[in-house]
Amino acid sequence: MKTNDELFKNVISHAKEYGFVFPSSEIYDGLSAVYDYGQLGAELKNNIKTYWWKAMVQLNENIVGIDSAIFMHPKIWKASGHVDGFNDPMIDNKDSKKRYRADQLIEDKITRYQKDGKTEKANKLQADLDNALNKDDLGSLKAIIEEHNIVCSISGTKNWTEVRQFNLMFSTQMGAMAEGSDEVYLRPETAQGIFVNFLNVQKTGRMKIPFGIAQIGKAFRNEVIARQFIMRMREFEQMEMQFFVRPGTELEWYNKWKETRLKWHLALKPDQSKYRYHDHVKLAHYANAAVDIEYDFPFGFKEVEGIHSRTDFDLSQHQQFSGKKLQYFDPEVNQNYIPYVIETSIGLDRMFLTTLCNAYEEEDLSTPEKADSRSVLHLHPALAPIKAAIFPLTKKDGLPEKAREIMDALKMDYNLIYEEKDAIGKRYRRQDAIGTPICITVDHQSLQDNTVTIRHRDSMEQERVAIADLERILEGIVGWKSLLKEIL
Amino acid sequence: MKTNDELFKNVISHAKEYGFVFPSSEIYDGLSAVYDYGQLGAELKNNIKTYWWKAMVQLNENIVGIDSAIFMHPKIWKASGHVDGFNDPMIDNKDSKKRYRADQLIEDKITRYQKDGKTEKANKLQADLDNALNKDDLGSLKAIIEEHNIVCSISGTKNWTEVRQFNLMFSTQMGAMAEGSDEVYLRPETAQGIFVNFLNVQKTGRMKIPFGIAQIGKAFRNEVIARQFIMRMREFEQMEMQFFVRPGTELEWYNKWKETRLKWHLALKPDQSKYRYHDHVKLAHYANAAVDIEYDFPFGFKEVEGIHSRTDFDLSQHQQFSGKKLQYFDPEVNQNYIPYVIETSIGLDRMFLTTLCNAYEEEDLSTPEKADSRSVLHLHPALAPIKAAIFPLTKKDGLPEKAREIMDALKMDYNLIYEEKDAIGKRYRRQDAIGTPICITVDHQSLQDNTVTIRHRDSMEQERVAIADLERILEGIVGWKSLLKEIL
Repeated sequence: MKTNDELFKNVISHAKEYGFVFPSSEIYDGLSAVYDYGQLGAELKNNIKTYWWKAMVQLNENIVGIDSAIFMHPKIWKASGHVDGFNDPMIDNKDSKKRYRADQLIEDKITRYQKDGKTEKANKLQADLDNALNKDDLGSLKAIIEEHNIVCSISGTKNWTEVRQFNLMFSTQMGAMAEGSDEVYLRPETAQGIFVNFLNVQKTGRMKIPFGIAQIGKAFRNEVIARQFIMRMREFEQMEMQFFVRPGTELEWYNKWKETRLKWHLALKPDQSKYRYHDHVKLAHYANAAVDIEYDFPFGFKEVEGIHSRTDFDLSQHQQFSGKKLQYFDPEVNQNYIPYVIETSIGLDRMFLTTLCNAYEEEDLSTPEKADSRSVLHLHPALAPIKAAIFPLTKKDGLPEKAREIMDALKMDYNLIYEEKDAIGKRYRRQDAIGTPICITVDHQSLQDNTVTIRHRDSMEQERVAIADLERILEGIVGWKSLLKEIL
Repeated sequence: MKTNDELFKNVISHAKEYGFVFPSSEIYDGLSAVYDYGQLGAELKNNIKTYWWKAMVQLNENIVGIDSAIFMHPKIWKASGHVDGFNDPMIDNKDSKKRYRADQLIEDKITRYQKDGKTEKANKLQADLDNALNKDDLGSLKAIIEEHNIVCSISGTKNWTEVRQFNLMFSTQMGAMAEGSDEVYLRPETAQGIFVNFLNVQKTGRMKIPFGIAQIGKAFRNEVIARQFIMRMREFEQMEMQFFVRPGTELEWYNKWKETRLKWHLALKPDQSKYRYHDHVKLAHYANAAVDIEYDFPFGFKEVEGIHSRTDFDLSQHQQFSGKKLQYFDPEVNQNYIPYVIETSIGLDRMFLTTLCNAYEEEDLSTPEKADSRSVLHLHPALAPIKAAIFPLTKKDGLPEKAREIMDALKMDYNLIYEEKDAIGKRYRRQDAIGTPICITVDHQSLQDNTVTIRHRDSMEQERVAIADLERILEGIVGWKSLLKEIL
């Protein structure tokens, strides 16, 4: 039995070995906390996006999707609170020059107290930490670090700087005024691109409340401690939807979206026990309800998606900072108001990691006679990078030509692979490892009666089917419709 | 007859009015040269991406797609030449504080000489400009500006600073070392993400030369003079493919891709006379052949896509700067070599603009009896944001219920719109304006015999069809297959 750590390591190396995820700039020894999606990863990621977009936009008449830019007017981040409040408390060790998040240094100490059985000390320290964080009291954080003799793990010394706030937004200079350019930020979330376009979309799309605006796009956070593979990256992608509702109805919609979004995850047929809700007890100042959908990663339950009832906080702030009225006239109640908002926000890269972890299995296929095993990705067929592999049993007797005919008939509909090298068993195993749901094998009988063998990834069972039925069979297994039906 | 300027203005306002393109951060008075795609623009943009991805990756067995990060190791831009060479020569007017591109100030002067019939003066100045640019001689540029009495259009003075090089890459600070963070760049092109992943993809994907790696993604350039709507933006998206070949075969492949890419554009059935090749006479130092595919925008022929034979320049540079061998062992010739590269590079936003300009028509429908006109987008059906609109003729007698039934049967396959308000003619016109290829109208006869009226956008012709045939009819008109067949 493998430990979770070992399992996670294997998932990461499998992802690399088969072209799902590469460390960014690897030939230059990498760039910390940034990753590239390889030839299979890009397909899987695109399929996750498509699933989300179809589920949210295509299937919901009252939700539309936009694609707003990463660069936005800097005042937007003042209004949203990110310029002033999107900080981590940082402390530097003067000897090692290493920078730490002050709160995490203290949390590591709490964990050590707990391991050493010093429960009372741990609880006291936790309370002090919470207290300091709630008050934004940087001096207290420093005092705690000194009092508890926390040292730098590199220098081993307590030679610390003061604790300072460190803003997580990346900034850059835009434009060409001689008098100094404008500082702009790389957006730390896609949501604000939706809020500032609220009126444009509502008016030009003639949307009526309740309605939603969805978006998929990159966001950037200068995380000091980025870790756990693609779980916490400095450059990442979000799939967010803001649902605008009449004030007073928000909790009803919150509950609806909480259910709807979990259903979306579970329709992919993962191990259902690995999902749970985590209700927020402490709410952000703008929220009146919030829940995470958590997945049980090899390193524990962590947030994959958040559903938040954000009240009218964001639109009100933008109304105030931009000086433009961001109201909606509701003909049903004959009233102008700033809508309330329910947000669903999912990390695309986390969803990718969830999907990989869920799919990856090192399956023991040993029989009393022979030890055997395979690596297999049990991806939902609609998400699989390659929908089917087409194999001529041998490289001669016209089998490749027959296989190519089948490929040509299907390749406009699906992403396929053709392979004629290696023994058929080896070819099956390679497709298992990349999650291809179906292998189609052309043999000598195919030339006689126009049938082929279909071999299913999960069951490894084979069946003989007519070539003329392939399109229909494929559509039933890998087509979007069979997945989308589950969430209707 | 409208002038081209008027036509272009109308395209831009149509794009805004119907939710295709909004100025970024509009409620904050905008952010220069940055735009957001609205609810229909996002769909059109996604469809262009899908068309490209299917044509390049899905239909070509030897091309795979990746998705590399915007952040890359800073040394990569040293190797690519962007840190040292990706500059524009800038000059500031000390009175107005306005910054200009020195070469463009001079080119504007050349144009004025030409307009004034001073051909000889114009030619002489052009030669001097070319000479100064070729030698990177900033002093000469300044001297030319002074000699020809070029003034700032705002202050009217000749009070100029020296000419300086201005790098077009955006930079930001990444990471958390106390001693100062690392400066990283926002990539100015997606191509380098492909080059640095060349070996990873080749090995994990077991690719054999010739093969290609494709990518769609954002790139950023701090253009001093950004203009012409979404034609030249500071944040934009590229669709690039690098095709790796055996040295000596590159011109053969260059010619093949030159043809293949034009075919891709023309398959969308635009006005074919608006496309042309523009061969580069002066080649970049790394290229041995280059051509642009140009489109005749309302402001003239401009590049939409470039096809470049880049030799082994990029891989050689990365081999040198990274110290890692970037070679391929070619079993057919039993040799190791650095592959040569043919690049196809298309600006997604320009392609979007091309598509809009091509599709937009203010059609005169006047008869001797009555003046009439409509705005219509003749988008290729596969690119249309909405594939079909479903209308009950009236809001009663069970027609809405019947229309909804049809909608429910089709909505898992296609992006549809349901509308029951307004007269049917008005509803048709609205769909024309957003490019919806088909309107399906449910009337009282539908309840009797399960037929509906289909109305076609371009011809405005109507036909009566069975509801049972709708899926097949739609697939034939808006499905990807009918478009992809054109380029096979």
